[in-house]
Amino acid sequence: MSFNRESLQGLLAAIEPVDQKIMAQAQVRLDNLTKPLGALGLLEEMAKRLCGIQATLNPSVACKIILTFAGDHGVVEEGVSAVPAEVTPQMVANFLAGGAGVNVLANHVGAQVRVIDVGVAVPLTGQGLIQAKVKAGTANIRKGPAMTEEEALAAMGVGVEVASQAIADGAEILGTGEMGIGNTTPAAALFASFMDIPADQITGRGTGISDTVLAHKIQVVADALVVNAGLCQDPLSTLAALGGLEIAALCGMILESARRKVAVVVDGFIASAAALTAMEMNPTVLEYCFFSHMSAEQGHRLFFEKRAIRPILHLGLRLGEGTGAALAMGLIEAGVKILTQMATFGEAGVTPGEILAGTTDT
Amino acid sequence: MSFNRESLQGLLAAIEPVDQKIMAQAQVRLDNLTKPLGALGLLEEMAKRLCGIQATLNPSVACKIILTFAGDHGVVEEGVSAVPAEVTPQMVANFLAGGAGVNVLANHVGAQVRVIDVGVAVPLTGQGLIQAKVKAGTANIRKGPAMTEEEALAAMGVGVEVASQAIADGAEILGTGEMGIGNTTPAAALFASFMDIPADQITGRGTGISDTVLAHKIQVVADALVVNAGLCQDPLSTLAALGGLEIAALCGMILESARRKVAVVVDGFIASAAALTAMEMNPTVLEYCFFSHMSAEQGHRLFFEKRAIRPILHLGLRLGEGTGAALAMGLIEAGVKILTQMATFGEAGVTPGEILAGTTDT
Repeated sequence: MSFNRESLQGLLAAIEPVDQKIMAQAQVRLDNLTKPLGALGLLEEMAKRLCGIQATLNPSVACKIILTFAGDHGVVEEGVSAVPAEVTPQMVANFLAGGAGVNVLANHVGAQVRVIDVGVAVPLTGQGLIQAKVKAGTANIRKGPAMTEEEALAAMGVGVEVASQAIADGAEILGTGEMGIGNTTPAAALFASFMDIPADQITGRGTGISDTVLAHKIQVVADALVVNAGLCQDPLSTLAALGGLEIAALCGMILESARRKVAVVVDGFIASAAALTAMEMNPTVLEYCFFSHMSAEQGHRLFFEKRAIRPILHLGLRLGEGTGAALAMGLIEAGVKILTQMATFGEAGVTPGEILAGTTDT
Repeated sequence: MSFNRESLQGLLAAIEPVDQKIMAQAQVRLDNLTKPLGALGLLEEMAKRLCGIQATLNPSVACKIILTFAGDHGVVEEGVSAVPAEVTPQMVANFLAGGAGVNVLANHVGAQVRVIDVGVAVPLTGQGLIQAKVKAGTANIRKGPAMTEEEALAAMGVGVEVASQAIADGAEILGTGEMGIGNTTPAAALFASFMDIPADQITGRGTGISDTVLAHKIQVVADALVVNAGLCQDPLSTLAALGGLEIAALCGMILESARRKVAVVVDGFIASAAALTAMEMNPTVLEYCFFSHMSAEQGHRLFFEKRAIRPILHLGLRLGEGTGAALAMGLIEAGVKILTQMATFGEAGVTPGEILAGTTDT
């Protein structure tokens, strides 16, 4: 019962828009709370959208789960990263031991972290690791496709399955996470291909490479786009040619979240490439996505500008793992609490003044 | 034992810079954590500064207290707000009942809210209210000074006293809050006076006034600056002439926090005017301040740009009360946990690659 083209078509067809009627009702509630209209800005917008996603005026994101997928990248042999590929499995062990950034920030907001091996190059075990390896790392995208379409579909299927399980376990909001040394390179290639952006505008420093290595990395991305040009016929084939196993898994996870009407918090640059891939497959996915932050990685800003998306945080983060998603989950929950816990003018005996009289223009 | 000019001089003289040596040690620790150098951006910078403030490599902000000062403004008689002055006491009651935005967001991050009447126009009582009224509202700044210097000093003294008590009660970080219908007008006047900004650039819509009322409000601010020009000789006299009782209390609170080496999270536009006043009295205060967010109120951006300050959040908030301070406290705590809870490369057995080899240039 493996995930195939037919499963993907079924998944895409099952994604429905969020409930606009409930959102309109949520707006009425927000406008009756003891504050000037819209004075809590993005918190209000996020709460309203969650109402639409969950189709209720009493949404909850109390149960939060971050899914961190790990995979390796053949393109690392081109010397595009400041960090050796052996760090991918080492960091997986760090996640499982609870010592990584995502663990600390997930604990801070009350989220659980699940770690999935969907494509690490070496055999991996460990207490709590979800073993779902599709392939021991991708091929070098400078020389040809990262994966076959079947492999990309299989990795997407892992994302679907793990998201589905998390939702079955009670998750009311999911966060995307990833670990894969070298994965800003395939992410940049995907952005470039889907949005028609030159390699030098979208490619950044990742973990912190020098000017020389950056120039080389830009060339690698440009070459990958040329070498795989003929293969990139649609979102799936582009994902297979230029992407990564963890990116494909994230794409599947995001699609499944949307299908199940569960909000998904997109982490950083790599997760955004996965979200963009999912949006290319079905634009309605965007209604379920909260983009956690504007990464310090060059190119992320371009994505947000071109798609008119407003990220929640601007903290100069560039770690991935799900760290930004964790922080944003805390703010989304704050918005939900505003909607569900604040007193209305009537309840508090506060005079709304002109605020509710329709004479204001903001 | 009232707060007077001599007390203020003593307070200002007692403020010391943060501990740069500890901050350097904190940077070493941050650079050894299992992440690329600086990859957690502002979280790392905030954690480092907290080390300097608390003079320890194990800072804590577990005990958080938000101080919300309420006061009324004579200038409301000019029709500068969309909301009647009776809302100030109504909102104080809402704070005490736990139904306001600041209550919800403070609960969300585990902070306590204390509400202080330092200058509400009507008599106020209520379970939990700290009664420290200096005066029943300020005078109309369009016609003359808001307060005498003695009254401003007395209100500052309230801020000092309440901050001191909160610290005695265990507060490891303080948040500023305020409530006072009309108080974006005196705040704009203070920014304009201290930073030499024209009234039309610094004056905004507050709770949501129309274009017509905004034009009038700009004129009121401009008039207040002219009428009080002769009185504005130094930060204290300017605060007295153009400020508000809750703004003066916030100024005292911020100074006392800095003196006691306790981080203070500055909320929005009005609290920033108080912080600017404190910085004009002693620039070292800035080392203890975390500016929680860029308000949607026009003019706030100008303050941050002119002072080269980077606010933590950009959520389009414009509520005040301490709401932004509460949210930012949660992120500051996240930074502290990164510093104190994340594994180092050595602890986790992760290869740092070039990250610690000094070959990177980011």
